[in-house]
Amino acid sequence: MIKRLRELEPIELTTFTNELKEDILARVTDKIPHLESSLAVAELTVALHYLLKTPEDILIWDVGHQAYVHKALTDRLDDLATQRTKDGISGFLKRDESPYDFFGAGHASTSISALAGVCIADLATGRNRKRVAVIGDGSMTGGQSFEALNHLATLKTDALIVLNDNDGSIDPTVGALHQNNRYMDYFHSLGWEYSFLENGNDITAVIAYLQSSLARGGKRVVHIRTKKPNLSKKKSYEPGTTFQWWAAEQIREILHYRSDLRIFSPAMFASSGFGPLRDDFPKQFMDTGINEPHTVTTAAAMAAAGGRAWVHIYSTFLQRAIDQIIHDVALQNLPVVFLVDRAGLVGADGPTHHGVFDLGFLMDVPNATIWNPRNGDELQTMIFNASELQMKLDGPLFIRYPKDKTVCDSPEEFDSYKWMINQGSNSLILSTGAVSSRVQPGVFDHLHLGQIKPLPEDLAHILKDYSNVLILEESIGSGGLFGAIAGLVADEDFEVKLVKRKISDKFTSHGRRQELLKELGLIP
Amino acid sequence: MIKRLRELEPIELTTFTNELKEDILARVTDKIPHLESSLAVAELTVALHYLLKTPEDILIWDVGHQAYVHKALTDRLDDLATQRTKDGISGFLKRDESPYDFFGAGHASTSISALAGVCIADLATGRNRKRVAVIGDGSMTGGQSFEALNHLATLKTDALIVLNDNDGSIDPTVGALHQNNRYMDYFHSLGWEYSFLENGNDITAVIAYLQSSLARGGKRVVHIRTKKPNLSKKKSYEPGTTFQWWAAEQIREILHYRSDLRIFSPAMFASSGFGPLRDDFPKQFMDTGINEPHTVTTAAAMAAAGGRAWVHIYSTFLQRAIDQIIHDVALQNLPVVFLVDRAGLVGADGPTHHGVFDLGFLMDVPNATIWNPRNGDELQTMIFNASELQMKLDGPLFIRYPKDKTVCDSPEEFDSYKWMINQGSNSLILSTGAVSSRVQPGVFDHLHLGQIKPLPEDLAHILKDYSNVLILEESIGSGGLFGAIAGLVADEDFEVKLVKRKISDKFTSHGRRQELLKELGLIP
Repeated sequence: MIKRLRELEPIELTTFTNELKEDILARVTDKIPHLESSLAVAELTVALHYLLKTPEDILIWDVGHQAYVHKALTDRLDDLATQRTKDGISGFLKRDESPYDFFGAGHASTSISALAGVCIADLATGRNRKRVAVIGDGSMTGGQSFEALNHLATLKTDALIVLNDNDGSIDPTVGALHQNNRYMDYFHSLGWEYSFLENGNDITAVIAYLQSSLARGGKRVVHIRTKKPNLSKKKSYEPGTTFQWWAAEQIREILHYRSDLRIFSPAMFASSGFGPLRDDFPKQFMDTGINEPHTVTTAAAMAAAGGRAWVHIYSTFLQRAIDQIIHDVALQNLPVVFLVDRAGLVGADGPTHHGVFDLGFLMDVPNATIWNPRNGDELQTMIFNASELQMKLDGPLFIRYPKDKTVCDSPEEFDSYKWMINQGSNSLILSTGAVSSRVQPGVFDHLHLGQIKPLPEDLAHILKDYSNVLILEESIGSGGLFGAIAGLVADEDFEVKLVKRKISDKFTSHGRRQELLKELGLIP
Repeated sequence: MIKRLRELEPIELTTFTNELKEDILARVTDKIPHLESSLAVAELTVALHYLLKTPEDILIWDVGHQAYVHKALTDRLDDLATQRTKDGISGFLKRDESPYDFFGAGHASTSISALAGVCIADLATGRNRKRVAVIGDGSMTGGQSFEALNHLATLKTDALIVLNDNDGSIDPTVGALHQNNRYMDYFHSLGWEYSFLENGNDITAVIAYLQSSLARGGKRVVHIRTKKPNLSKKKSYEPGTTFQWWAAEQIREILHYRSDLRIFSPAMFASSGFGPLRDDFPKQFMDTGINEPHTVTTAAAMAAAGGRAWVHIYSTFLQRAIDQIIHDVALQNLPVVFLVDRAGLVGADGPTHHGVFDLGFLMDVPNATIWNPRNGDELQTMIFNASELQMKLDGPLFIRYPKDKTVCDSPEEFDSYKWMINQGSNSLILSTGAVSSRVQPGVFDHLHLGQIKPLPEDLAHILKDYSNVLILEESIGSGGLFGAIAGLVADEDFEVKLVKRKISDKFTSHGRRQELLKELGLIP
């Protein structure tokens, strides 16, 4: 389709773009999230591929939410129907999917750094080509964008950035820069030429604008405003069916009497079931922008000043704040409560978003407490207890829950989040988190650990009764719960055969969560 | 001393400050690194404590390199002589050392986030007090500073930032913002009032300036220039004595024939023995600023464009780029070589800087290769091989070495970085990295693994011959080499008793590296 596009006269581009949008809509109906973000940049996408000689010229997208038109243009129109399903194409950019996807992305704010990397590679070899990055106003709130602008501006090379401004990523964009619309001063201060185009959905204007910017060279930012069509139905969770719903309900109760509690989120409230809650408690929910490092340090300092700070964060984005968790929270013994959402496999979003690393990382952080609820009411109990215990904590508390359905089926009482089924077997299944609820009652004993750090004091005593212990956790890596149990066995010096059941040491593709869990052998 | 300071007339402050500087110099001689940074802000420090009612008013320092005068003023003048030694005071800010150290720091760019956290805590309780953060121009290159400025500006509260500009952190400050001195536009674009004072070492001027800024309220940045005295002797490494020296020598050889190789460092070349090398190969060494996330993504994209990208990074700062290592490098199978310096205990810098987490984290990253050399010549062989193998790699390669002395004593040949001493014992010591060279020859067999990921294919075969295997690694956490071996034993289902010898699950204080290693039981 690219070839056909490049043979068109400029005057034909509007029709081409409109037809392309219709073709996309016909294929994806309402199945794809972020479709509006992509349709908003249809004209921009067509203009870029019309002017650039991709894939030799470099076109980098930030996150990839806006790249569905790009995918359609680059030989993946029909594949859009299979997007985000098992064996279908990815919802994000992906290098091994197409030579036109120069740099994969799923997390925000990496595109300008990637642009810098290409510039440096080309400077080293003397290669001359066009290099463009497209970044949204939401992604501009991430500090990595600033780092990249500040550094790239010092390189002796041409580079073009398109700032795609539609007032939001998933949530509306926060921060003074965007609120005051002071982008011109901002880019100038960092050494970039800047120009602004109001109507970024007028393809003739976009073409003219980009053409002149590309021709003039240097370091340029073209700021264009685009408009998202309104296709989406508001997401809602059926009461009592998801971990997200149970979390929101419990927090609602707490906020009624804890007016000093603040919940920070790096731009993810709306997609995690907290939207209505934020509307009701606007002072207590603070969207900081797409900036995990800042969010975590802010929470730490609020705690240092005696405040009640909670952080809502996706497991996959917590990877960006590991240092702040160690250096600002845990090392200083500060009581910050983390709601780690999307902990575990996320399903359709795939490998950029699977929350499979945080459990292993967090187990290694001194002073941390880690809770993995089995189901909705265990999650609620934990959230309630977190609120009660917070000021006595000596470090961070992480409550990790997956993007999954769940029900309420805990026994009425359970002791420190341990939950045991005794069948009189000499083999034990030891599990943690949501996968615990999928362990089939059978001939083996089963112990669910809601708290995996610190380990229960009587755990060695319990394990000593067994010949075999199978450890089941929704996590990757050499440590995690398995490593901790192996360490306990070594330190306490008793004999037991351990069996390891966790995510193997490779990236897991996209697909339905249950499908993936089954494939990985974590659920029957 | 604070009390005495606050009873002085303004006219007496110059003398007070000069005497204080002399008192400090008399105590620390040349033992303390970063002393110049602290003396440069002596006037600023005195002025701030004179005007603020610390510790009720909040004073936050970034990194802490500039905080020695602050320490002297706040009851720790005599302790400065013991700074950075075991049981002495810390080289950085530390909450449990003094109520005047409101927020600890050792890593850069956290202070404005911390300021935001205090503002939010005070907003929640209605508390009214002065809140000031002091940040250097080097720390301003870190994206977290931008994130914090952008977010904090939207809060309805007063906050004052002092930008302490002395053209450098450890290395001279890079980036367009500083080079072009466009701070006014920058801060304005983010919603901050801005003013500039050229002579930040004139205490009368500093007092007047700060006083008026504090009185006016709002969100204000006071940019002051300060001058470092020149006390330092240039650091140099005695040839052949440190891992850093061996690394630099080997890289020098490689750069002679690989003109397309680029080595990125987030602002740490000078302190890691690469200073002279950078002078000789200025095009190939790229200081990106204090911005680990950007550095790693840039390297990934350079690799995606076919370039040879290496990243030099301290283990403790690598914690800031875990996400980029996963999402941009490993997931995309990109061949980036990482020189992980200061891997392991760093000694005098203490818990903010110990490189004890990265080994555990990196073991969990799919597609990663991890090498831990035993000594200088193993490090050289690895660096040479990394350069030869790079373009065939299917993901990142990490070469980890500590801040330590080392010699050259490898046997002439060794096979894939395995190094075995066989004593005919049924017990094996299995170790990796520099601690391997401190294992005493004795009655046990000893296997050093230079490569711990992937594990050698024949490892299970080797281990099956032993009844006991002691695993020795300079790393914290439930995984790492120990977890990997425990996993191997579980997966291959053979019987062996494992003994774990690694850093226990708490933060290790500062002190001499050898002293700490001994205390932790990692060396005899």
